[in-house]
Amino acid sequence: MADQVKVAILGASGYTGAELIRLLATHPRVRLTALTADRKAGQPMASVFPHLAPFGLPDLIALDAFDAASVDFIFCALPHGTTQEIIAALPRDKKVCDLSADFRLRSLDSYAEWYGHAHLAPELQAEAVYGLTEIHRAAIANARLVANPGCYPTTAQLPLIPLIAAGQVDAGRIVIDSKSGVSGAGRAAKEGSLYTEVAEGMHAYGVASHRHAPEIEQGLSDAAGKPVIVSFTPHLIPMNRGMLSTIYVDCAGGASPADLHATLASRYAGEPFVKVLPFGQTPHTRHTRGSNLALIGVTADRRPGGVILTCAIDNLTKGASGQAVQNMNVMLGFDETLGLVQVPMFP
Amino acid sequence: MADQVKVAILGASGYTGAELIRLLATHPRVRLTALTADRKAGQPMASVFPHLAPFGLPDLIALDAFDAASVDFIFCALPHGTTQEIIAALPRDKKVCDLSADFRLRSLDSYAEWYGHAHLAPELQAEAVYGLTEIHRAAIANARLVANPGCYPTTAQLPLIPLIAAGQVDAGRIVIDSKSGVSGAGRAAKEGSLYTEVAEGMHAYGVASHRHAPEIEQGLSDAAGKPVIVSFTPHLIPMNRGMLSTIYVDCAGGASPADLHATLASRYAGEPFVKVLPFGQTPHTRHTRGSNLALIGVTADRRPGGVILTCAIDNLTKGASGQAVQNMNVMLGFDETLGLVQVPMFP
Amino acid sequence: MADQVKVAILGASGYTGAELIRLLATHPRVRLTALTADRKAGQPMASVFPHLAPFGLPDLIALDAFDAASVDFIFCALPHGTTQEIIAALPRDKKVCDLSADFRLRSLDSYAEWYGHAHLAPELQAEAVYGLTEIHRAAIANARLVANPGCYPTTAQLPLIPLIAAGQVDAGRIVIDSKSGVSGAGRAAKEGSLYTEVAEGMHAYGVASHRHAPEIEQGLSDAAGKPVIVSFTPHLIPMNRGMLSTIYVDCAGGASPADLHATLASRYAGEPFVKVLPFGQTPHTRHTRGSNLALIGVTADRRPGGVILTCAIDNLTKGASGQAVQNMNVMLGFDETLGLVQVPMFP
Amino acid sequence: MADQVKVAILGASGYTGAELIRLLATHPRVRLTALTADRKAGQPMASVFPHLAPFGLPDLIALDAFDAASVDFIFCALPHGTTQEIIAALPRDKKVCDLSADFRLRSLDSYAEWYGHAHLAPELQAEAVYGLTEIHRAAIANARLVANPGCYPTTAQLPLIPLIAAGQVDAGRIVIDSKSGVSGAGRAAKEGSLYTEVAEGMHAYGVASHRHAPEIEQGLSDAAGKPVIVSFTPHLIPMNRGMLSTIYVDCAGGASPADLHATLASRYAGEPFVKVLPFGQTPHTRHTRGSNLALIGVTADRRPGGVILTCAIDNLTKGASGQAVQNMNVMLGFDETLGLVQVPMFP
Repeated sequence: MADQVKVAILGASGYTGAELIRLLATHPRVRLTALTADRKAGQPMASVFPHLAPFGLPDLIALDAFDAASVDFIFCALPHGTTQEIIAALPRDKKVCDLSADFRLRSLDSYAEWYGHAHLAPELQAEAVYGLTEIHRAAIANARLVANPGCYPTTAQLPLIPLIAAGQVDAGRIVIDSKSGVSGAGRAAKEGSLYTEVAEGMHAYGVASHRHAPEIEQGLSDAAGKPVIVSFTPHLIPMNRGMLSTIYVDCAGGASPADLHATLASRYAGEPFVKVLPFGQTPHTRHTRGSNLALIGVTADRRPGGVILTCAIDNLTKGASGQAVQNMNVMLGFDETLGLVQVPMFP
Repeated sequence: MADQVKVAILGASGYTGAELIRLLATHPRVRLTALTADRKAGQPMASVFPHLAPFGLPDLIALDAFDAASVDFIFCALPHGTTQEIIAALPRDKKVCDLSADFRLRSLDSYAEWYGHAHLAPELQAEAVYGLTEIHRAAIANARLVANPGCYPTTAQLPLIPLIAAGQVDAGRIVIDSKSGVSGAGRAAKEGSLYTEVAEGMHAYGVASHRHAPEIEQGLSDAAGKPVIVSFTPHLIPMNRGMLSTIYVDCAGGASPADLHATLASRYAGEPFVKVLPFGQTPHTRHTRGSNLALIGVTADRRPGGVILTCAIDNLTKGASGQAVQNMNVMLGFDETLGLVQVPMFP
Repeated sequence: MADQVKVAILGASGYTGAELIRLLATHPRVRLTALTADRKAGQPMASVFPHLAPFGLPDLIALDAFDAASVDFIFCALPHGTTQEIIAALPRDKKVCDLSADFRLRSLDSYAEWYGHAHLAPELQAEAVYGLTEIHRAAIANARLVANPGCYPTTAQLPLIPLIAAGQVDAGRIVIDSKSGVSGAGRAAKEGSLYTEVAEGMHAYGVASHRHAPEIEQGLSDAAGKPVIVSFTPHLIPMNRGMLSTIYVDCAGGASPADLHATLASRYAGEPFVKVLPFGQTPHTRHTRGSNLALIGVTADRRPGGVILTCAIDNLTKGASGQAVQNMNVMLGFDETLGLVQVPMFP
Repeated sequence: MADQVKVAILGASGYTGAELIRLLATHPRVRLTALTADRKAGQPMASVFPHLAPFGLPDLIALDAFDAASVDFIFCALPHGTTQEIIAALPRDKKVCDLSADFRLRSLDSYAEWYGHAHLAPELQAEAVYGLTEIHRAAIANARLVANPGCYPTTAQLPLIPLIAAGQVDAGRIVIDSKSGVSGAGRAAKEGSLYTEVAEGMHAYGVASHRHAPEIEQGLSDAAGKPVIVSFTPHLIPMNRGMLSTIYVDCAGGASPADLHATLASRYAGEPFVKVLPFGQTPHTRHTRGSNLALIGVTADRRPGGVILTCAIDNLTKGASGQAVQNMNVMLGFDETLGLVQVPMFP
């Protein structure tokens, strides 16, 4: 159709790629015209993701065979560390939303520390806009390159940034205990991701060493106007989709727990995808499944002055591909909810 | 909007009710204006199904408070046995799609035998059209009352009816081994449906005595032009959604296994929701999750002349609420796919 | 056999009752001679728990029909609030291990506050010994009535009590984020425990209001010698068995994270059921499944002075029935590991 | 201890190896003295299977470093196709139970057809005894080399062999619809075994082409005294452990469905591990979890003369390692239940 943009997905054989396709297949302004996947180049989508077989998608091609000039917008859903040079090689007039971690950390030193090598496209890093849509909408609208946030950082920053910015929580004492479904680990065939290794059990991993910690701290430090260090522990939970962060904070600046709730409810009142529950209620991840919603709960702790924040999302949607589509909508001047009207699927 | 019909759901607090809402909330020609649930009357949807909270739905009302005159179309998603008198009391000029088993069996004797009491609305039964859309589309288009098929019968009849009608299988020797996710058991708080009773295990139930057997046999007998009795065993599988029937048949009339595949592929070639896989491939339920798709596989058995048919659906969608919306679309003259464009959600 | 004691289980139709039977059925010094379950009185075990059918157990009887004089030891696995008067009515010469919460809180005021009514057997409360075996072994050995700990309190107190007692953590800043499998909710048929309501999702519940908070604080306050209030949030996780607590503390008294590890490793060095992992490693619940093991991890936080403790158990075993058998062994002078030699079942 | 035999497990890093260890760790007559795993040689068990860390096991060694002379009994839990030459190289005076498929098919031609290469140890094949314990107990007691049955064949043969031998079922019309938990796929890191690929879905696989078909047919043909071909379809079910076969047969020889039940009940009356449920009841896999039990159900079909047999086991226990330990007990003259007294773990 005349009013459709042509969209490419680089890295269409992973779960975030598949989720992009799921959302974009019914997006009224998008036509998917190029899908790359080096190891599966030449295959039809039916053999890579059979659930996408009925939707008339182009076959997968190698990245080398991708003609960027033929499309209007590009999603990169490639593994961390591989994306910098690929995006650097794209024509400067193409808008890009990158779902990897490659452009999320503004500090090149921080990048090098956490990812083990110097950044390969520092000039692009300077240009990239961090794509937490509700926080950086204006900058995203003008961006050429958006670094789509990580799933854990989305659940941590949405509730914390407005509170830190308002001076209502003690930025020096933040505990973020996060739980994720398994799809966050991707489609790579690893022993630790086998059904039998994951089902009927749970564990913490990357304790005090997960790469999402500096990403969270970057956003919170911006809001605080000073460096913030958090306690952050991710856990692997036996479920496909869903992420929950339980965040323990202390009130500051004379604010009460109810004040914190009021701040968040007000901040997100007009947002289509961020919903603050009534004070004292807590969200379930299952109530976001397959949707771009983020649900936030605020509860007073028994410990005087303590507040427990909870934030639930679908890690593949608001935590990855849904937010990426939301960012594309903003970047292209579309209605922000286009393609994202899925009602959560429960049960 | 001017071109929207006003739709009611009677029995909106169960899973099929919630699934109707999920699908209809984004249906471009539908406005949900009445939702009933006797035990939860007066409650907002947020307290019954929190995942539907963001979608601006009306509060639940008691059935007694429902004004049928205010709506254009009515879905009944009430428990089996309760629906006959309720539908009988509705104005004759309202079109109705009933998701219960109450109007599925044409034979009043068969109904009485399997459901334990005489049918309470025999004149309506005579009028009801069985809503297996791909098989009875023309009749559905002219129906006032459609009896939406059961989930197991959908998976059994879609592959078998064309083959029996073509005389290509021996109707006297059909084994249907079916497996269902747990949502088919509904939302009633029963010990046998507890997470701890279901997870990490499976079992057959209703062996040789499940009420879907006569429904299946009715459809197959129609196709065969003579009474058909099947072996049918349902199983409960630890997953929310998804249904798979594995069907063992013998070729008849000189047909080969490949002929059976050709018959089905041809029969469903133009259907938007029924997809016949290449000969020898078998479908996964996960590739239908949340969609109205039915996937059919045909494989030659090692046993000479034997064929193994497989049919996968989402039991809440094509097996219940999705097919009901499909039927509504047909009954109201809408494009049959309206509101049903969901891409399967995987993982 | 001559050297076997006769054991009764009051409340044998719930999951903790079934787990007691699983463990005791192969205990070399125990013979199960009485099993009560009021609503299922008269039924054979095969109809209540088919998995126990092959083990020659007595039929279930009503509590009224139970003759306490006929047994040597009694487990109470009855619902909270129902146990006080029942135990009070037992002969004084019978040793009892109670798995309910009825005798866990020493403070009658605290009991009344959290459980909503005055304690019904205050004189027994004064006599009851709290059954966290590794902490109170000597008192348990001499007890007539042991109050078996809650599952969450077991995971919180095992790592925290030695550290608080050593003055190595700040008792004023403790965050306990706990996650539990579903069997902790028991076998009651509740909508919230249905497979479909639990699978593929997670949520916090009882935030800042769970009854295990005062039980945890009682034990920590004893260790601290002053009142301790904790932040404690339980979560429901889609799995049958397993519990994990992630505990965030600050070092105190000049101790380093490694010092905390050394304290715990030393404290539990000789224990058969409590294992402290190498510094920096974290436990999986699946590695305790079906066993009486508690696995403890100690990791230094990025936040200076912070330490993240993790404790994994099977909530039905070390979190309930396994620890109860352990306590019986101590109370009766048996080898503490009798009947508890199960190797964790993985996968 | 003086009365303990020294046992080796070749291939101790897979799930059947781990299950052997779980069972043997508490076997009163066994001491595990050698565990091999080529790719993990030199590692302690704690790093391969952390759940086995507390049980004082020897470190893993390479197969080349294994001294067969140092042990009394050898389990081979190596991948299919790799075992023939390894066992051929073992000293002739060592008894061996092989859990692979390498020695299950008596016909060398059939082996070559299904496994794609000529058998590498035909003289050993002639000597091997098929280890379906309840059927071949006497031969097993005298065997040096036992070929432990596959999991599917165990569930198919236990109910069918006595009925075929009695001439009570039509051996020409047998449909075996089997469902398995995921652990049957082993611990190899394959995309298709990932949690995200398996959870919340099911599918048939190896339809009409699974290697267990000839193994099943070998046993049934022996019982029938003539070649038997079956319809056999395995399915992958989202659960760790458990296998269920639903078997559709026709009565023969004038027998009624109740006669079939009587035959099975009588045949297995004295067996410690095979339990025939009352006529009309069907077993759950969850009631066998972690135990060596096989539960058999017999139900009359609605189709006249039809019978539906069901057989439930834990695929890792009676379907693999438990039956292997049972065979070892028979081969060494131990009480057949030693080490196999585990009560099923439910929930």
